[in-house]
Amino acid sequence: MSYRKSFKLICGFAGGSATLVLAAAVADSRGYFGEWRGRWSRLSVLDAAQPAWTPAGVTPVQTGHSWDFNWDKRDPSALTNGKKRESVTEDPSSEQDNGKSKATRNILLIRHSQYNLSGSSDKERILTPLGREQAELTGLRLAALGLKYDVLVHSSMARATETAHILSKHLPDVELQSCDLLREGAPIEPVPPVTHWKPDAVQYHEDGARIEAAFRRYIHRANPKQKEDSYEIIVCHANVIRYFVCRALQFPPEGWLRMGLNNGSITWLTIRPSGRVALRTLGDAGFMPPDKLTRT
Amino acid sequence: MSYRKSFKLICGFAGGSATLVLAAAVADSRGYFGEWRGRWSRLSVLDAAQPAWTPAGVTPVQTGHSWDFNWDKRDPSALTNGKKRESVTEDPSSEQDNGKSKATRNILLIRHSQYNLSGSSDKERILTPLGREQAELTGLRLAALGLKYDVLVHSSMARATETAHILSKHLPDVELQSCDLLREGAPIEPVPPVTHWKPDAVQYHEDGARIEAAFRRYIHRANPKQKEDSYEIIVCHANVIRYFVCRALQFPPEGWLRMGLNNGSITWLTIRPSGRVALRTLGDAGFMPPDKLTRT
Repeated sequence: MSYRKSFKLICGFAGGSATLVLAAAVADSRGYFGEWRGRWSRLSVLDAAQPAWTPAGVTPVQTGHSWDFNWDKRDPSALTNGKKRESVTEDPSSEQDNGKSKATRNILLIRHSQYNLSGSSDKERILTPLGREQAELTGLRLAALGLKYDVLVHSSMARATETAHILSKHLPDVELQSCDLLREGAPIEPVPPVTHWKPDAVQYHEDGARIEAAFRRYIHRANPKQKEDSYEIIVCHANVIRYFVCRALQFPPEGWLRMGLNNGSITWLTIRPSGRVALRTLGDAGFMPPDKLTRT
Repeated sequence: MSYRKSFKLICGFAGGSATLVLAAAVADSRGYFGEWRGRWSRLSVLDAAQPAWTPAGVTPVQTGHSWDFNWDKRDPSALTNGKKRESVTEDPSSEQDNGKSKATRNILLIRHSQYNLSGSSDKERILTPLGREQAELTGLRLAALGLKYDVLVHSSMARATETAHILSKHLPDVELQSCDLLREGAPIEPVPPVTHWKPDAVQYHEDGARIEAAFRRYIHRANPKQKEDSYEIIVCHANVIRYFVCRALQFPPEGWLRMGLNNGSITWLTIRPSGRVALRTLGDAGFMPPDKLTRT
């Protein structure tokens, strides 16, 4: 109950202050905060030495050949405010022990189902009849899995909202939340590049920071106060999900377009208290009859 | 028909000469071939400047931040025998044009279903009753997908062979082939390391080269003579499949243990004529009722 409450509080913050957080993040990536960094240490979005949306030409640190256990800045044994916490302590109720995660987070990322591509605005890009049918099938599957879902967050775009509302019919006790950070966009220039999809530089510039901010909000180890394993559903978009998967597995984020996702499919990430991450399935849509499968 | 025939020939070569190929590959990684490399250029297994099983401590070239279009040594515009082929030619029937792939290969990697973990030898590690049921469900799904499968290759281990034979009942017209290279093993030391699974160095040494050899045999763009898109089923093992996925997507192979796979699940790789690779799904087992899902 307290877990759900804190989740709501975080998302409330998101709705109103997203612009502020993004502006701060972009400013920080340019080094504007400099010596102020210590004062901002509670906002993890400002903490990365090298943001994932580092412009092309600058070699990112992350290669996947190593594993950063403090990738979400929640490793209690890592540096905090410039000093390392004591690694051995006799008092089990000490700050460090309290700072350790105890539960596993399961994040089920659902791609919205098929929608009307010819709509000229987001509001017109609503689900097709097949899309609504796909969402019913995904809802049935999620319910059949029988997991104790904690929350159902969805991108505020029409097709994700509509998908989430259909899923919600099958999960009547799960709280529904909308989030602007999860909207579709251009996370980072894909490598190898593609010819059929060429967003403007400004799109990567804005969406990249926003989608990275979404990643940092939703994909991290459990809060030390969380006692039981959690199961959270996030309904969003193909680019967002693929970028999340690359970042969570510490694979180069530029590789996100090397993956594809069926509409209404389930992508399942598990985050252990140690900060280990596992991808349990990517784009699972096996619960749909083959003639209902689409990728639009 | 001619495609199937050439496939059979390749696999025939595999059965008998696997040891020779592996010995050659290992020798080459140590630089023993040196100036002989040109003479061996038709054996792609010998061509990589830096093998994927490069020992720990040596930084591999591959980081995923870039994309090597000649990853399978089948890019006709790349260097061949030390000289670059002409990139522009007026004769459409020229060697280069003939050297280009025209079809897409779809590789459906199936993890064997649940087996008896307490068996002391491979022969005793046969499927459980649930495992046989899972294989029936996977076979039904593959048949329902209605694809024109070209071949069903399986690892020669008992649990993969048994799974393949059950799948085969549902795909009666698809040729069945066994392959030793696809057996389970330790592909490369995982990063981050795990405590519950610590193979000896010699296991990585032997299995690593063998599983890389399996990757090079099965995962590559279509032969220029292949006219139609193909659909090939490979029944093998969790470590082999996860390593294949990392290598195919040009993600660091050390990351293979960051993914998990359900028994009997489908992992689908698509390889375009250009050498582009896409992962369409990883570990899809949505066609199984939740109470039949296992990961052992």
